[in-house]
Amino acid sequence: MIDRTPAKNGQLALLLEVAGTPKPGNVDRHREYDDLRFEQFLAGAVGAVHGLNLAADPETGVGHAFERAIAGMSNQQAGNTQFGALLAVVPLVRAAATDRLTPESVTTVVDETTVADAVGFYTAFDHVDVAVGDPPPETDALDVRRGSGAAPELRRRDLTLGDVMAESAPVDGVAAEWVNGFERSFGAAAWLQAADGPIYRRTSEVYLRLLAEEIDTFVVTRNGAETAEEVKNRAAAVLDGVEDAESLAEEFVSRDINPGTTADLTAAALYIALEEGLVI
Amino acid sequence: MIDRTPAKNGQLALLLEVAGTPKPGNVDRHREYDDLRFEQFLAGAVGAVHGLNLAADPETGVGHAFERAIAGMSNQQAGNTQFGALLAVVPLVRAAATDRLTPESVTTVVDETTVADAVGFYTAFDHVDVAVGDPPPETDALDVRRGSGAAPELRRRDLTLGDVMAESAPVDGVAAEWVNGFERSFGAAAWLQAADGPIYRRTSEVYLRLLAEEIDTFVVTRNGAETAEEVKNRAAAVLDGVEDAESLAEEFVSRDINPGTTADLTAAALYIALEEGLVI
Repeated sequence: MIDRTPAKNGQLALLLEVAGTPKPGNVDRHREYDDLRFEQFLAGAVGAVHGLNLAADPETGVGHAFERAIAGMSNQQAGNTQFGALLAVVPLVRAAATDRLTPESVTTVVDETTVADAVGFYTAFDHVDVAVGDPPPETDALDVRRGSGAAPELRRRDLTLGDVMAESAPVDGVAAEWVNGFERSFGAAAWLQAADGPIYRRTSEVYLRLLAEEIDTFVVTRNGAETAEEVKNRAAAVLDGVEDAESLAEEFVSRDINPGTTADLTAAALYIALEEGLVI
Repeated sequence: MIDRTPAKNGQLALLLEVAGTPKPGNVDRHREYDDLRFEQFLAGAVGAVHGLNLAADPETGVGHAFERAIAGMSNQQAGNTQFGALLAVVPLVRAAATDRLTPESVTTVVDETTVADAVGFYTAFDHVDVAVGDPPPETDALDVRRGSGAAPELRRRDLTLGDVMAESAPVDGVAAEWVNGFERSFGAAAWLQAADGPIYRRTSEVYLRLLAEEIDTFVVTRNGAETAEEVKNRAAAVLDGVEDAESLAEEFVSRDINPGTTADLTAAALYIALEEGLVI
């Protein structure tokens, strides 16, 4: 056996995430949208690998590596397939490539980010449309939708990528992972390792457990807090055997409910599990 | 948009092939075997990329590139997931990376192969078990199952990889493509381009058309000529609307019928179509 590099594990984590089924509200092996297809996630994972290789290279800033990963990922018609998943995976790849992957080592990666990394992160938004909420007026100059146009303001305020994530953490579940040592992702990786059977089923179970554990911030942004609370409770009902995951998947698709942040954390958990030796 | 490199298109072709459904008798988005899972094809495609990069590098022999692709592909528990697909795709990647991809340019790649390339091809068998038929006694020294052990005999007989493929062409549909300028693969690529809709459905249709067009040599090897003829006729019946592809897929899985060569040609067709601009 040849060991998979951190970058290859990153690519494989993206692929295993989208293959996991059922994942109510997200694209998976069995479900897709006309304008967001399974095959576009495959192309997104293929395109991301150059950025993932840069993420493994300590000479490259993680912000630039992320921006390159998004540029490559977006090389398909759907545009944004794995923005959040890559935002979660890139610092983990850096930690795995430069140290043993632990909550502490990824926290070091976050703590060492620079203003240039923040500029890289904002520049990534030039490549894709990402659904985000309106920022409060006082931070409008740092609206991520400004993309690389926000660079002067980032430099003026001397904000690192870690600072930017700390700002977003209350409203973005991936940013929250950046500031808490990827606590939920590491926990979910342990669930993946402890479970049996095909990875696509374990991925589904871990996704549902994450969804039942905390409200999905992407659902809050797109559908409101009340719907996000309902989604959390419905996922818990599936785990309790009261609801059926396949039916819930159909319903979420029909209601345009997409717990994308939970899918992103699932990709992060898969990545950590692969680094820890998950056998495929 | 960033253009995908030939190597990345090679990786994407492997992923799109396995995602295509229904493909009666092969692993796809909806079907797998306990010992041959969808996720293992994903890992196979991730692992193959180093070899595909070498295939795009004119300084590297195609035989060695193929052997490295197989070594990387086999880095998952199932072992052989995409041996034949890579055998079909590697010379196409070389042709695309060094010239415009045409039947003529890939024929040049084949004609320029060396004895060292043949050794590389045989060495690839050291990494995986591939189902092959017994060779006639007079060529026993060149049984592919000897792997790199066949190297002295290859050198003694001065056989290039093109020569080896010409020997196998009558009993192996992928080898036949090597000697005929990938005629069926280019034809199937045109079908892919002419069709509409999601790629996974077009892939299914192209697979069925290839299967109905000629007997699958892998089915001949594993199940005999009579079964291979039946498989061909049943695929034609699906295309004629007389049989249902999903039911046929269930039946072939239960009867352990695996038209793997046709899946390999489907991967080659996807690769050619991607190089010709198939939009994902």
